[in-house]
Amino acid sequence: MENFTLFNPTRIHFGRGQVAAIGSEIPADSRVLLLAGGGSIRKNGVYDQVLKALGGRTRFEFFGVEANPDFDTLMKAVEVVRRERIDWILAVGGGSVLDGAKFVAAAVDYAGDPWEILVTRAAKLTSALPVGAVLTLPGTGSEANGAAVISRRSIREKLAFISPLVFPKFSILDPETTFTLPERQISNGVADAFTHVIEQYLTYPANAAIQDRFAESVMLVLAHEGPKSVKHPTDYDSRANVVWATTWALQGVIGAGVPQDWASHAIGHELTALHGIDHARTLAVVVPSLLDVQRSSKREKLLQYGRRVWGIRTGSESDCVTAAIEKTRQFYESLGLRTHLSDYDVKPDVGAEIAARFRARGVLKIGERGDITPEVVERILRQAA
Amino acid sequence: MENFTLFNPTRIHFGRGQVAAIGSEIPADSRVLLLAGGGSIRKNGVYDQVLKALGGRTRFEFFGVEANPDFDTLMKAVEVVRRERIDWILAVGGGSVLDGAKFVAAAVDYAGDPWEILVTRAAKLTSALPVGAVLTLPGTGSEANGAAVISRRSIREKLAFISPLVFPKFSILDPETTFTLPERQISNGVADAFTHVIEQYLTYPANAAIQDRFAESVMLVLAHEGPKSVKHPTDYDSRANVVWATTWALQGVIGAGVPQDWASHAIGHELTALHGIDHARTLAVVVPSLLDVQRSSKREKLLQYGRRVWGIRTGSESDCVTAAIEKTRQFYESLGLRTHLSDYDVKPDVGAEIAARFRARGVLKIGERGDITPEVVERILRQAA
Repeated sequence: MENFTLFNPTRIHFGRGQVAAIGSEIPADSRVLLLAGGGSIRKNGVYDQVLKALGGRTRFEFFGVEANPDFDTLMKAVEVVRRERIDWILAVGGGSVLDGAKFVAAAVDYAGDPWEILVTRAAKLTSALPVGAVLTLPGTGSEANGAAVISRRSIREKLAFISPLVFPKFSILDPETTFTLPERQISNGVADAFTHVIEQYLTYPANAAIQDRFAESVMLVLAHEGPKSVKHPTDYDSRANVVWATTWALQGVIGAGVPQDWASHAIGHELTALHGIDHARTLAVVVPSLLDVQRSSKREKLLQYGRRVWGIRTGSESDCVTAAIEKTRQFYESLGLRTHLSDYDVKPDVGAEIAARFRARGVLKIGERGDITPEVVERILRQAA
Repeated sequence: MENFTLFNPTRIHFGRGQVAAIGSEIPADSRVLLLAGGGSIRKNGVYDQVLKALGGRTRFEFFGVEANPDFDTLMKAVEVVRRERIDWILAVGGGSVLDGAKFVAAAVDYAGDPWEILVTRAAKLTSALPVGAVLTLPGTGSEANGAAVISRRSIREKLAFISPLVFPKFSILDPETTFTLPERQISNGVADAFTHVIEQYLTYPANAAIQDRFAESVMLVLAHEGPKSVKHPTDYDSRANVVWATTWALQGVIGAGVPQDWASHAIGHELTALHGIDHARTLAVVVPSLLDVQRSSKREKLLQYGRRVWGIRTGSESDCVTAAIEKTRQFYESLGLRTHLSDYDVKPDVGAEIAARFRARGVLKIGERGDITPEVVERILRQAA
C-alpha cells in the first residue's frame, strides 16, 4: 500500500424526507443561491421541499446549469453571487449542477481570471463559499468529494479541478427524489460510477486489500442493483443501494494508497468536447477497448476483477481476461449504453484528432504506468470503431 | 435501508513516516498535552518521532493511561490541562489512550461532574479541546470515530460516550509503529475489530447492500491478514491491511442505516469490570455463545456471513449456521483468544451476577431486536462456560 492522506468532511443525510435537514445545515441568516438545472425539480416536488426547508432564509435562484456545466453559464451565476452578497450555495440537481456550484463557490473570491482555477487544477485557491447539495441524479460522486469538471464550449475544452475547499458541507441523498429520472440518466449514472471504480481499481496490485474489496463491493452492488433499478425506478431499496454505491465510487477511499488510471476519462472528455456525447457513453466506448489494449499491463487486476466481480473461474488466464473485458462491455450494453464509436456516428479518425489534441497540450503519458501515449490513445479509439 | 446521517471529519495520514504530519496539523503556537500509556513509545522510537514533529511547540506530558482507561487517572490529566492552559491533546498509543484523550478533551470545560458525560452518553456536551492521534495499536477504531469507553474501577463501572465533538482532528496510522507490539495485543486488536463488524452486521437483513459488502470486506481482510500479521509482525503490507481494516470496522459507514446489536460488547464490558479480562477476550467468550443462542433471529445474516465470509456452500441451512458460528470460534482461537469462561477461571454463575447488574441498571432489553433480556444474558454466559 502506498502512503496516503484521506479526508472527507461532507455530512451525508441519506433517506426519505431528508431534504428537511437543510433547515439545520444552513444558518438562518444566510443569503442562499439555489443553483439548479433545467427545471425538472419544479415538476417532481423537490423544489417545493427545498423551499419549505429553507423557510425564511433570503433566497436567490439561478436555473439553467446545463449537462457538462459551462464556464460562461457559471460566470453569470458568479455575477449574481457577487452582486447579491450571497454566502451559501445550495446545489439542487445532479453532478453537473454540483460541479457548477463548486466552481461558482471557488470563483467568487478568486483574484484573477477564474478559468485559471481549472488550468492550475485549483493549486492557488485559498477560499470558497460553503456549498450544500441535494442530489437528484446519482453517478458522478460529486456529492461527497472535492472535485468538479467544467466545460467551456466556446473553446471546446473540458477540464477538472480538485480542492478540499469545495467538499460540500452537507449532501442530501433521498432516493425518492430520483424516481422520476429518465431511464437514460439513471443508466448513465450507474455506468459512470462503475467506471470510476474501474479507473481506481483496474491498474496493478498494490497490496491494498481493503481498497480492493471495497472497489469490488461497489462494482458488485452496481452490477446487481443497477439494471434492476433502471427497470424498476420506484423500487426504493434498489434505488437506495444504487445511490449509495455511486457515492462510494468516487468518495476517496477506494483510490487511497493505490495507483489510479483515469485515461478512459481523459479520452472520454475529448469525445464529449468534440462530439457532445453523454459523458457516461464516452466511457462505455473507451473502457472495453482500453482494457483490451492494456490487457498485459493490467493482467493481474483483470484476473482478480473477473474472478471476484463476475465469478469467472474457468479457462486459461488469457480467456479469463477476455471474458472479464467482455462482461464489462455487456454490462454497459445491458444498461442501454452502446460501446462503439459507430453507434454514435463518430468516425475512427477521431483517434488521430484526439491524439493531436493531447500532444498539443503536452499530455504525452497517461494511465497508471504512464504508458498510454498519444499513439496508444489513437489505437484505443481505432479498436473502439 | 434505514435513514441515516453519516459524518466523519477525521483526516487520516496513513503510511511510513507519517508521524511528521503532526507538524502541519497542530498550530505552531499550541500548548500541547502528549497523552500516553505505559512508556513503550519511548522504546520503539515513536516518542522521538513525535518530539521531532512537535518541534518548538510548548509540550506537557502525561504518561500512565492504563488499558481500559480509568476515570480517576484521566481526571489527573484534566487537572494538568486546566492548570497549564493546554489547548491541544495529542494521544500517542492504542485505543485506551485515544479514548482517554477524548474524555479529557470533553471533561476540561464540562460544567459539572465529568462522570455525567458517561452517564448521559455526552448528550449535554457543548465543546471539547481538539484531539490528534498517533495510533500505535490497531483494533478499537477510536482513531476515526467519536466514541470512547471509560472505566471507573473504584465503583466497578465501564461506560461509553459518543459525541461528534471528539472525533480526532487527525489520526496518524503508520503500520511500522506497531511492529514491536506484543503478539497478545495485536491478536486482541484483530479480534476486537472483527467483533465490531459482527455487532453491526450479524443482525437481520435491511437491504443495505453497500454496508453488507463493506462489512464482509473488512471481515475477509481480517480473516486472511490477521493471523498472518500476528505471525509475521514486520510484514509491512500485511500489517498495513490489518491496521486499515480495523479502522473501517468502527468508522461509521458499515453501521449506517442498518440495525446494530452490541449485546456482546455490553456483556463483555461486565466481564472486564468484574474480572479484569482483556476486552477482546471477553468478546471471544461471548460472541460464539450469543450467536448460537440467537441463531433463529439472526438466521438470514448468519447464512449470508457463512457463505460470503467463510465460503460455506454445502449442508442444510441449520448446518450452515452451525458451521458459520464454529468458524467464528475457530477464528478467535486461531488468534490465540480462548472462547470459554473456564479458560479464564470464571465460574458460569457470573451470568446471574451480570444479569442482576443489568436489572439494577434498568437494562432489560439489548440486541438489535431488544430480545436479549437479563434472562437471555444469563443463558448466553451459561453456554459459554
